[in-house]
Amino acid sequence: MTYKEVYLDNSSTTFMDPKVLDTYYETMKKYYGNPSSLHQLGVESEKKLKEAKSIVANTLKAKPQEILFTSGGTESNNIAIHGTINAFRNRGNKIITTKIEHPSVLEIFKYYESLGFEVIYLDVDESGVVNLEQLKTELNRETILVSIMVVNNEIGTEQPLWEIGQQIKANNPLCIFHVDAVQGYGKIDIDLLASNISLLSLSSHKLHGPKGVGALYVKDKLKIAPIMLGGGQQIGLRSGTENVPGFYAMAKACEKIFANNKQDTTKISKLRNYVWDKIKGSTKDALLLTPLDYSAPHILNTAFRGLKGEVLVHALESKGVFVSTGSACSSKQQGTSHVLKAIDVPKEYIEGAIRISFSRYNNEDDVCYAVEKIIEAVNELSLFMA
Amino acid sequence: MTYKEVYLDNSSTTFMDPKVLDTYYETMKKYYGNPSSLHQLGVESEKKLKEAKSIVANTLKAKPQEILFTSGGTESNNIAIHGTINAFRNRGNKIITTKIEHPSVLEIFKYYESLGFEVIYLDVDESGVVNLEQLKTELNRETILVSIMVVNNEIGTEQPLWEIGQQIKANNPLCIFHVDAVQGYGKIDIDLLASNISLLSLSSHKLHGPKGVGALYVKDKLKIAPIMLGGGQQIGLRSGTENVPGFYAMAKACEKIFANNKQDTTKISKLRNYVWDKIKGSTKDALLLTPLDYSAPHILNTAFRGLKGEVLVHALESKGVFVSTGSACSSKQQGTSHVLKAIDVPKEYIEGAIRISFSRYNNEDDVCYAVEKIIEAVNELSLFMA
Repeated sequence: MTYKEVYLDNSSTTFMDPKVLDTYYETMKKYYGNPSSLHQLGVESEKKLKEAKSIVANTLKAKPQEILFTSGGTESNNIAIHGTINAFRNRGNKIITTKIEHPSVLEIFKYYESLGFEVIYLDVDESGVVNLEQLKTELNRETILVSIMVVNNEIGTEQPLWEIGQQIKANNPLCIFHVDAVQGYGKIDIDLLASNISLLSLSSHKLHGPKGVGALYVKDKLKIAPIMLGGGQQIGLRSGTENVPGFYAMAKACEKIFANNKQDTTKISKLRNYVWDKIKGSTKDALLLTPLDYSAPHILNTAFRGLKGEVLVHALESKGVFVSTGSACSSKQQGTSHVLKAIDVPKEYIEGAIRISFSRYNNEDDVCYAVEKIIEAVNELSLFMA
Repeated sequence: MTYKEVYLDNSSTTFMDPKVLDTYYETMKKYYGNPSSLHQLGVESEKKLKEAKSIVANTLKAKPQEILFTSGGTESNNIAIHGTINAFRNRGNKIITTKIEHPSVLEIFKYYESLGFEVIYLDVDESGVVNLEQLKTELNRETILVSIMVVNNEIGTEQPLWEIGQQIKANNPLCIFHVDAVQGYGKIDIDLLASNISLLSLSSHKLHGPKGVGALYVKDKLKIAPIMLGGGQQIGLRSGTENVPGFYAMAKACEKIFANNKQDTTKISKLRNYVWDKIKGSTKDALLLTPLDYSAPHILNTAFRGLKGEVLVHALESKGVFVSTGSACSSKQQGTSHVLKAIDVPKEYIEGAIRISFSRYNNEDDVCYAVEKIIEAVNELSLFMA
């Protein structure tokens, strides 16, 4: 019996690109000085830090000083949202997000709701696309922040960033637009200026960079408040000795993503669509939850009637194929996915969803093997359920 | 001309132990799964995370569930202080710290002072030892938190933790005692239970572990509030996908520190005292700022009358010797060190301090070379100043 392992859970986390890992290794050895130290070893580390900011900035057509390094997507989202609300709470009491955000956005909005803020959780349609009419209605002078993810982490839906950004600008030019781009960066085009984006969160471990590292784009001259106080590193917005090797390795991972971005995303998209075609053709009762035409190329969420996603995940791991039920964060928590609820997935399907998520390292052979195993597992389990 | 490089700025940051760096490398390759994932790769990462907690816990005679991993000492201090105040602000309005804390403690206390809290900054004597009488006087029913660093980062003074802890317990058993142990862990003995410590901050990059990683000991059953919200990782206290390779590498660095701790600290202490003897004997007007008898073994702060510490740091780097003026965090900021002010360093010395900080990797040869260069530089500069 042939046995291989195929990792298709790249939206949970990715393995670190071997060359990026080597970069980390070499940078840690050579640039271990504290960028705040006055001596040469400090100065050299500071240069490396600036280079890292510059590399990430280039991928976003931003300025180096607009890039803040953090410990990950969760910290980036927390700085962006707490930081905006704390800096601008005198402007108003209303904040807007959607029903399908990541917990690191949603939980903060719930927190401010408990403090008395007016919080709007925008509806999405059955594809997961945000209701633009509702956004328009809700935006007013009191609105200080809109936070919307560009690509949903469970179903892959891409939001119309440009329309959202323009609508915010038209209704309240002072309102800050934050975009959680953890799943979207490097997968779809993001134009910060055209989309009126002031804050944008990135995570390194979703793009074959080191874990424990992230970044936040903070538009030049926008003064938000820090969530951690201390030595005043990174223009006072993120205190703590900078993890230069980690930040630099993340930058190199970003650079690599953008080197062949068009070809890679086209390849991933083809692999994803191939998997869906095979599943659709070879299983009964599969429901596509990812809107293939307006989604990031790397996510395929599909539900099987009457099956349990969790059972399917375990059946697949025994065949060497790694996928997930939904987001990794919530996969161990009880209850139904808030995303699948928001897009009104029928009751008989909602427990049976799996998320298959690709990376540019997946090749045709691996994916063919995986889809064969997925079909096999689904049909075996369906037989068992019947 | 012989030229070598001797790094004596280990209180700013340390190079990563090569074996620990290898551990990071191997762990990143093998355990890249997200600990929250349901499948085998997630389960294996979660095991590694638990092992890391267990290793750090062992070094403190604590329980694995009492260890929280963070992005560094600054985050650990921020979680400890914000977390305690947010969880227990109903208990009282008074918080106590000292005048010589690290900015990541001091800045938070200033913030709460600005919000109306009664904040006491305890005096220290000329050795940097906290005023125990004043602590006793200030402790009352309203006091919810005392935060004191065990070893000062600029002058190395060790605080009498046991006395402080006992005094807190005697005066208000509900008052939380937080210890910033970033400079003390692995350098001096810390007994959590005997010293009545509920929270203790650690930093990995100060002990030859990876940068961007830290830990916080949180006493079992103590429920403090998180500063970042999200997926609820690490018992809800520190959301964000866990940096398993970084956390595990930090754990291995901690384990290594404790393997030969007695011998290493004795060796460092001897090297440190040797350096002071040589400086005292071969320069004029050197003032010892570190109380050698009650300080951590790795820090020597000495001031030279009429000299500028910054000039001396640059003179030394040109000779291949790396030291600092004070803490790295504040070394680029204008103004006199708040620590040296608090211990009443005479005006003619206060600008002329340098901190020489050792690690167990420094050997006799390196240190002999360094002290020769220090004496040479001081005497050259003094001649120039005269």
